[in-house]
Amino acid sequence: MPRQPAEAVLDLGRRKRIGLDEAVFCAGKSPAQIASILSKHEAVRSPALLTRLDPDKFARLPASLGKRIDYEPLSRTGILGAGPRKARGRPLVAVVTAGTSDLGVAREAARALGFHGIGVTEIADVGVAGLWRLMKRIDAIRRHRVVIVAAGMDAALPSVLGGLVACPVIAVPTSVGYGVAAGGTTALNAALASCAPGVVVVNIDNGYGAACAALRILNTKASGG
Amino acid sequence: MPRQPAEAVLDLGRRKRIGLDEAVFCAGKSPAQIASILSKHEAVRSPALLTRLDPDKFARLPASLGKRIDYEPLSRTGILGAGPRKARGRPLVAVVTAGTSDLGVAREAARALGFHGIGVTEIADVGVAGLWRLMKRIDAIRRHRVVIVAAGMDAALPSVLGGLVACPVIAVPTSVGYGVAAGGTTALNAALASCAPGVVVVNIDNGYGAACAALRILNTKASGG
Amino acid sequence: MPRQPAEAVLDLGRRKRIGLDEAVFCAGKSPAQIASILSKHEAVRSPALLTRLDPDKFARLPASLGKRIDYEPLSRTGILGAGPRKARGRPLVAVVTAGTSDLGVAREAARALGFHGIGVTEIADVGVAGLWRLMKRIDAIRRHRVVIVAAGMDAALPSVLGGLVACPVIAVPTSVGYGVAAGGTTALNAALASCAPGVVVVNIDNGYGAACAALRILNTKASGG
Amino acid sequence: MPRQPAEAVLDLGRRKRIGLDEAVFCAGKSPAQIASILSKHEAVRSPALLTRLDPDKFARLPASLGKRIDYEPLSRTGILGAGPRKARGRPLVAVVTAGTSDLGVAREAARALGFHGIGVTEIADVGVAGLWRLMKRIDAIRRHRVVIVAAGMDAALPSVLGGLVACPVIAVPTSVGYGVAAGGTTALNAALASCAPGVVVVNIDNGYGAACAALRILNTKASGG
Amino acid sequence: MPRQPAEAVLDLGRRKRIGLDEAVFCAGKSPAQIASILSKHEAVRSPALLTRLDPDKFARLPASLGKRIDYEPLSRTGILGAGPRKARGRPLVAVVTAGTSDLGVAREAARALGFHGIGVTEIADVGVAGLWRLMKRIDAIRRHRVVIVAAGMDAALPSVLGGLVACPVIAVPTSVGYGVAAGGTTALNAALASCAPGVVVVNIDNGYGAACAALRILNTKASGG
Amino acid sequence: MPRQPAEAVLDLGRRKRIGLDEAVFCAGKSPAQIASILSKHEAVRSPALLTRLDPDKFARLPASLGKRIDYEPLSRTGILGAGPRKARGRPLVAVVTAGTSDLGVAREAARALGFHGIGVTEIADVGVAGLWRLMKRIDAIRRHRVVIVAAGMDAALPSVLGGLVACPVIAVPTSVGYGVAAGGTTALNAALASCAPGVVVVNIDNGYGAACAALRILNTKASGG
Amino acid sequence: MPRQPAEAVLDLGRRKRIGLDEAVFCAGKSPAQIASILSKHEAVRSPALLTRLDPDKFARLPASLGKRIDYEPLSRTGILGAGPRKARGRPLVAVVTAGTSDLGVAREAARALGFHGIGVTEIADVGVAGLWRLMKRIDAIRRHRVVIVAAGMDAALPSVLGGLVACPVIAVPTSVGYGVAAGGTTALNAALASCAPGVVVVNIDNGYGAACAALRILNTKASGG
Amino acid sequence: MPRQPAEAVLDLGRRKRIGLDEAVFCAGKSPAQIASILSKHEAVRSPALLTRLDPDKFARLPASLGKRIDYEPLSRTGILGAGPRKARGRPLVAVVTAGTSDLGVAREAARALGFHGIGVTEIADVGVAGLWRLMKRIDAIRRHRVVIVAAGMDAALPSVLGGLVACPVIAVPTSVGYGVAAGGTTALNAALASCAPGVVVVNIDNGYGAACAALRILNTKASGG
Repeated sequence: MPRQPAEAVLDLGRRKRIGLDEAVFCAGKSPAQIASILSKHEAVRSPALLTRLDPDKFARLPASLGKRIDYEPLSRTGILGAGPRKARGRPLVAVVTAGTSDLGVAREAARALGFHGIGVTEIADVGVAGLWRLMKRIDAIRRHRVVIVAAGMDAALPSVLGGLVACPVIAVPTSVGYGVAAGGTTALNAALASCAPGVVVVNIDNGYGAACAALRILNTKASGG
Repeated sequence: MPRQPAEAVLDLGRRKRIGLDEAVFCAGKSPAQIASILSKHEAVRSPALLTRLDPDKFARLPASLGKRIDYEPLSRTGILGAGPRKARGRPLVAVVTAGTSDLGVAREAARALGFHGIGVTEIADVGVAGLWRLMKRIDAIRRHRVVIVAAGMDAALPSVLGGLVACPVIAVPTSVGYGVAAGGTTALNAALASCAPGVVVVNIDNGYGAACAALRILNTKASGG
Repeated sequence: MPRQPAEAVLDLGRRKRIGLDEAVFCAGKSPAQIASILSKHEAVRSPALLTRLDPDKFARLPASLGKRIDYEPLSRTGILGAGPRKARGRPLVAVVTAGTSDLGVAREAARALGFHGIGVTEIADVGVAGLWRLMKRIDAIRRHRVVIVAAGMDAALPSVLGGLVACPVIAVPTSVGYGVAAGGTTALNAALASCAPGVVVVNIDNGYGAACAALRILNTKASGG
Repeated sequence: MPRQPAEAVLDLGRRKRIGLDEAVFCAGKSPAQIASILSKHEAVRSPALLTRLDPDKFARLPASLGKRIDYEPLSRTGILGAGPRKARGRPLVAVVTAGTSDLGVAREAARALGFHGIGVTEIADVGVAGLWRLMKRIDAIRRHRVVIVAAGMDAALPSVLGGLVACPVIAVPTSVGYGVAAGGTTALNAALASCAPGVVVVNIDNGYGAACAALRILNTKASGG
Repeated sequence: MPRQPAEAVLDLGRRKRIGLDEAVFCAGKSPAQIASILSKHEAVRSPALLTRLDPDKFARLPASLGKRIDYEPLSRTGILGAGPRKARGRPLVAVVTAGTSDLGVAREAARALGFHGIGVTEIADVGVAGLWRLMKRIDAIRRHRVVIVAAGMDAALPSVLGGLVACPVIAVPTSVGYGVAAGGTTALNAALASCAPGVVVVNIDNGYGAACAALRILNTKASGG
Repeated sequence: MPRQPAEAVLDLGRRKRIGLDEAVFCAGKSPAQIASILSKHEAVRSPALLTRLDPDKFARLPASLGKRIDYEPLSRTGILGAGPRKARGRPLVAVVTAGTSDLGVAREAARALGFHGIGVTEIADVGVAGLWRLMKRIDAIRRHRVVIVAAGMDAALPSVLGGLVACPVIAVPTSVGYGVAAGGTTALNAALASCAPGVVVVNIDNGYGAACAALRILNTKASGG
Repeated sequence: MPRQPAEAVLDLGRRKRIGLDEAVFCAGKSPAQIASILSKHEAVRSPALLTRLDPDKFARLPASLGKRIDYEPLSRTGILGAGPRKARGRPLVAVVTAGTSDLGVAREAARALGFHGIGVTEIADVGVAGLWRLMKRIDAIRRHRVVIVAAGMDAALPSVLGGLVACPVIAVPTSVGYGVAAGGTTALNAALASCAPGVVVVNIDNGYGAACAALRILNTKASGG
Repeated sequence: MPRQPAEAVLDLGRRKRIGLDEAVFCAGKSPAQIASILSKHEAVRSPALLTRLDPDKFARLPASLGKRIDYEPLSRTGILGAGPRKARGRPLVAVVTAGTSDLGVAREAARALGFHGIGVTEIADVGVAGLWRLMKRIDAIRRHRVVIVAAGMDAALPSVLGGLVACPVIAVPTSVGYGVAAGGTTALNAALASCAPGVVVVNIDNGYGAACAALRILNTKASGG
């Protein structure tokens, strides 16, 4: 009925413009819409990162397409075309989690970094209720250029980490928890109100966004003045 | 106009019933209302603890009454009659604050405990952004039977403390902060969502309530089986 | 892809440090993740308490593992290894509920206390709309050293109880109700704003946390000065 | 500049239509606007009830007008013309408060009822933290045809009262309290989620609205079939 | 494990005390719990009203029990024992709805009134977007002693009705709507902030509570002085 | 049980009164209720627009009825009777979306406009993260008399568009997004707080409402002075 | 200290681009900042509309500047340069208010329209609690091309009006009210959730925005196809 | 009364540990508390940055102390000791504002950066309602290594900027606005939900925090691998 049928418009110049490839956010898109977008990527040989791709939805993609996607269920991410680029040199980013339930979000960040060629160290389950676990790993964490912290519930970990490391700390509040955790809102607000100065924050469960922020930081170094 | 003029009804049996004296919450009461309530206390020789008594309002009480009150402005508390009872023995409660702005709330708790005869140690400014400050004092904190923690903003301190001490930890979120701190709401929710098990929480800025909770805990020991 | 595969880190020194065993919070963990954590517990002969383990998820654990777990569906809790330790002496904690819908949360508290060797009396359905039900049981409640109250909706019960008993009152707001009950938020706020002094509060539906708070209180007695 | 200058339009037929006189809500109106509205009332000899009239604003009304107003500062109400009508017969409405800080709101209800010729009994300071205070007065309360309950903080009183009396219970949540009390929101929600059936609620601090609801109830009786 | 198994405690004296029978709120209760409560009712020949009984859950009750229940799916209510008592005389309560989606809530109120012997007139789909529909029925509405209004979304209907009828108006906000309707919160707040004086409000979707409020009003007439 | 069975009341004079046909909002209505309403429409030969008709519910309508409905699944709309009227002349409304996930809401607006005989141009996927996409289409957008913008997440598009076009801009915030997107609340608030003057807003996901607003605007021209 | 001192950048091409002059939003700006901005306007002979200019702040502007401003205190607006342009022909916009407290917001809209040369009719105090007041004026309202409605509290007026007039209805929720009115949030949400189709909404108290929306609508007519 | 008087504990090792000097947050501290903290700084010759120091409070500091402070009122910041260190080389950070009301927050960031020796370019009033203003400055912005964006209301600017520059973008939502702007909450949420990838966010009005984040980023470059 509309005069001009609407369809997705790829932003293929994004990497040139801001150093980041466009990702395909799959929540709220049908398998048909996803397949249509991916076919455009393949037509111009542009690799694609897929986020929020539930296992069920992945299974409903055309089988031939699914086979070309490197899919990882914990993070619900897929990579189409060329696979993850080879990470160069030593890991530059530490991806730290407070609890095992935060791993999916952390892995999304790790996968997005890998897709852009950046190596990552995952350091899990160092929540502050057992402070010794964090202290045991703090020197390893300090060896990286950027720290991403995924934490839910009260999100005390970004504050403690922010007081212990000098590099950028990117907090990813997660929706882990119940009651006042309120789908990650308390973790978000606690990270924003952090008593440790200079902690920055992205949206709840937004591992991809944290990775993009890390890439901007690493890019600024490469191209800086 | 109403047939029966309304007035305050003292709950003088409260100490017998639940081990706590009634306090006079002064916010929202006029100096005249406060004076009227205190005259009833004096008539039956019942000492009174006044909370939320702003310096301005204290100054507007009848001068003769004001002189009989032991007033402390930081905590906005007053004590009428017999003064604070003598604290017995060594301090049983540690009142810990994350920052200097939390001191008023902590002092309200300390004053309420003193009013009931319990000694207190105040340990200030040990917020987690400089973890060494807390670690330096942790053994001193552990020497108490109950820990009260006043913390605003992200309130990470109760979680860290809860993982380090075995005794009851009562968190008092404070309204310190701005933006997402939201008048103490984030501190409250972070304390309630604490990853450290068994941390309990009272209302925002409710130093008096935390003291009462500590008194219940100490009483249960005295009278327990 | 990450250099170092992430996995759970048990906090086996927790009982020594703060008197509480670590629990496994099963919401948001896959059966595989749960099984992996439990195998570590069994490797070091450390008993484990499982919370928020839905019947469906319990059924998806490896059958041989499931058999070794003492599972209770109302509370969605499981106990692995040695079963609940024998409760010593008379019940020290009263677990009180306002309505029958609050029983699951109350039972979680009771199971966690039993796991730590503490006896419990469950007193159900004494909500204040029929005050006589509470009054009939109030002397029985007073015989305990700590009272845990699970209540949803308007959570008036903690306030009324707080005015009737001298011992610590731990309110567990429950998500029972609809509309303004808002998943337990009103019960939570009502308990925090309680007009009865010294009532302490834990997160919504957090029966486990209430039990841990009670254990801290009972521990402080045992080890106190 | 607008073609047609805007001004207040009295609803003088309201009593005939719904049994209630229009009140003048003074918050947000300037003294000049109030005086202009009152002059219209006097022009048609219609008595007027003024609500939310702060002492400061009352003092800024023209002196000659102020003298004709029966002003009561605790409730911030004024009555112009003929004064409160004579209450007929025995008091039909009990206006109950949980604490002394709730008295202003309760008095607004009492004044509005008196303005419409209904007698009131004020019963103050019977909050549930000292249940004996309520129990001592419960028979007196039961002697009325409608109960209005003003309560802030956790507003447990309407629930307890609703389980003890058979007549209509109108809860007026008040903005008394701090922190989670949130300007009366918790009291409001607790009253709405009351476990006692059939408690009805009006807006926070809306003593006038509670009085109007009571008048509707009493009117329905007079004119009912 | 708990010493004393917990179970429901019927409040059989409720009708004598406050004129209302206890209802069984079925949400959050298992079919087994419901059946157990109903067997207690049958043991003492006390009829029971069941609310929030979804068709699925009703179907999972023991078949023999289900046959004895008068079930109505739109309102999700059931009546056990003697069926609805015969309504006496002409309908006393008008149950008015803004839209057809509000009918379930309105019917719950109607069923609860019928259970207590009160006749009802249902007047549907008179929302204010087509004001003529309301005006056509307003005289019929005025013939009742109490008006219950179920309205979702912006809930403008209670305000308009409150300005047109003299009798008590009980607003039941419904969860009908989306976006800012927020599960009935906007309807609730609009009803509470109504510009028509004396409108009273119950919890969202609480048709049962509105009926109980109407019963209290009708009772006060019967027993009044 | 109620004396007068309740049923839907069509507002067939709406087009005459306000220039809009009544739509049938299908969420919360059963297939039987929908069929009953449609039969009334067919009885008087009044075409009907159905909104929020999920594919599942559409499939559960009587087959013979379903066949007479022009159903479009992306927008979840159906049209009964005469089909969409023929759009007259060139498209008057541009329906613009920020991302492909907003297409369903935009299509609802387009379908509602088509139902009323207005032609539409759909312009998709011009979110501001790739500003060039919008700039490429801005002249095409400017050729219309009204612009409807559907945008979720941060809804920056209405602000940018509002600064670029002179005609009315109607923002439809969508529930696309996660975390702080909060079901469209952030998009809604961002649109309302737009720094571009004169942007107007409708409820979240309310494509139908945006279409009605556009129709009012186009009607005012036709009939204006 | 910054290399390049920051200052306001006028958007003088705005009228050409979108048909609206830029306004100076004075809240949060110091008198010095306002004077500096106005001097730029005068330098290029561009008239300026000032909004949210409190009488106190107006009085603190340089006296010589103040004299050149046409200031109106109820709306807190000022006009600099050439004064309001002469309104052309008959009033095109009706600005309707629910209560007298809404007049300030309505007047802001009227002043902004006058500044752009559009005549306005103000119709005050027609809230729905006395429906006859609205009905008496409805024909006068219908004579305009756009209706702006300012309403606080429950904002039922836009819904009722939206069902009675065919032209665009722009609702301006106002912050009038208390308690659940919540600074205009309930009025805002009620207007957005309006049961009358096609009502559009601007931010709370945003009379200026409503005027701009009306100007866009009137402009689209003038230049339309 | 407490055994151990509480006082501030400086964190002098912070620069060594995390590259940032401790700042003195003056809101909620009395002039006496501030003076006491500053005397400790002077005792160890540690320069101090003061934030949230209102002009009134600054004026109430001891006069001799005030003279040693470099105070800037728009940002409410003061610098004690050695003044701002000399900024090295070309400006590394662009501090961009959407409107002039955002300047105070932006200046706080600029002052904090200057205090740490980093040069800044302030670029003001480039909000997206007049996109040409931003486009004119975009090349200047791109010349920096980090961009800080202060924006209130709908905060569309960070999203647009994030799509135009490759370097890190730190959004500081400001409390500028009214109604749904809600003290900066909408700006905060819009920035967090930004459709431009990798935008990071700090607390509302937290210019200091944004500066610290920029310092962490610049530090990571200096010390990186």
